[in-house]
Amino acid sequence: MTEHIVSSFDSDLKDLSRRVVEMGGQAERLVADSVMALVKRDTELAQKVIVLDGPIDLLQREIEEKAILTIARRQPLAIDLREIVAAMRIANDIERIGDLAKNTAKRVLALTGEFHPQKLVRGVEHMSGMVLEQLKSVLDSYASRDDARALEVWKRDGEVDILYTSLFRELLTYMMEDPRNISLCTHLLFCAKNIERIGDHATNIAETVHYLSTGQLLADERPKQDTSSLTTVPFPA
Amino acid sequence: MTEHIVSSFDSDLKDLSRRVVEMGGQAERLVADSVMALVKRDTELAQKVIVLDGPIDLLQREIEEKAILTIARRQPLAIDLREIVAAMRIANDIERIGDLAKNTAKRVLALTGEFHPQKLVRGVEHMSGMVLEQLKSVLDSYASRDDARALEVWKRDGEVDILYTSLFRELLTYMMEDPRNISLCTHLLFCAKNIERIGDHATNIAETVHYLSTGQLLADERPKQDTSSLTTVPFPA
Repeated sequence: MTEHIVSSFDSDLKDLSRRVVEMGGQAERLVADSVMALVKRDTELAQKVIVLDGPIDLLQREIEEKAILTIARRQPLAIDLREIVAAMRIANDIERIGDLAKNTAKRVLALTGEFHPQKLVRGVEHMSGMVLEQLKSVLDSYASRDDARALEVWKRDGEVDILYTSLFRELLTYMMEDPRNISLCTHLLFCAKNIERIGDHATNIAETVHYLSTGQLLADERPKQDTSSLTTVPFPA
Repeated sequence: MTEHIVSSFDSDLKDLSRRVVEMGGQAERLVADSVMALVKRDTELAQKVIVLDGPIDLLQREIEEKAILTIARRQPLAIDLREIVAAMRIANDIERIGDLAKNTAKRVLALTGEFHPQKLVRGVEHMSGMVLEQLKSVLDSYASRDDARALEVWKRDGEVDILYTSLFRELLTYMMEDPRNISLCTHLLFCAKNIERIGDHATNIAETVHYLSTGQLLADERPKQDTSSLTTVPFPA
């Protein structure tokens, strides 16, 4: 293989990775903006989020296409193949993160003019702060190929789940206290679920970064603590 | 290329496709069982669904791995490359369908012993019947490479969304009528959302079958009618 071909392959890999990092940055901003729109009841910002999810979907398709063509043309082995597979997987997770931010933004539009005590959104805001940190960390861990940092993110997923389960209970309680809260709290439950799933995707990305660095899969047993689907709040008799 | 290599490549493709079809059948059963468990309040069946999601996740990873190795080894072009990419994409959608069925099953466990008027689950049951038909059709369209059938599924996605939006309203109304319904209806809202998303994945698969048959992407504009994220029910004054 001539040096020319090697270096052009190398630049293919760098280009793929650069696009994934760029896509991650876009998704991160979208998540932050969707929560900001929810907290501030900013429908203009929500509309912006909805529009800006489109370019992220497009980037995902481009990355997938480029990855597959690179595999077919270069027949990479071992670490190079892992680089390409990792780019595809991470792009897939980021694309779904964008969709979840968009769904939250759509709910902001639904809630215009609704009964909207600020207290009720606090929990969602708090939880999203934690998830955004996770997302930022894991994207940095990919950009710098930092396995230790990825593992930290992976280990902290349980904390997000605990927070989500407690928020689930809290929102159910608000609904029972005052039926005027039902419509808002229902949408907030879905927003909280969106954010919890963004945390799951951050954990997926951490697993991919680990696979990229080591060639090993993390044990199937994720530090899963989300028991909200097992949660009910008894209606006070 | 010798005849031997060609036919072994052919058998690689057939094997990939066979695994995707097998995986689809498993996911279809899981969806049906999760809804059955919800309607009949059958915790044993729910537990079975939770366990049987594992093998589906495993199949997805196997298909991805085999697909990538096949691309790297065979450097397929045009239709053959589409076959492999389609297998990967469809496996991805099916894996998510399995996750959604599992989430519904977990909620069945949460609802043990809850106030549970049968009337409330009717809408979810009805909607899931429609989505299961879509799922069955689209998996058949993949197995038989039937583009026309895939397009039918694609066009009907709007109907599922309309049903979901109306169910969303209905469940919100039950919560407002009687706060004892809140806990159940909240979980039913998430179950309905799971089923609606299964419908979305069926639509994704239809798009992939179309791409496989024609090499063309469907227009970005999907017949999207889910406005539930834009829906609220005003609390009766």
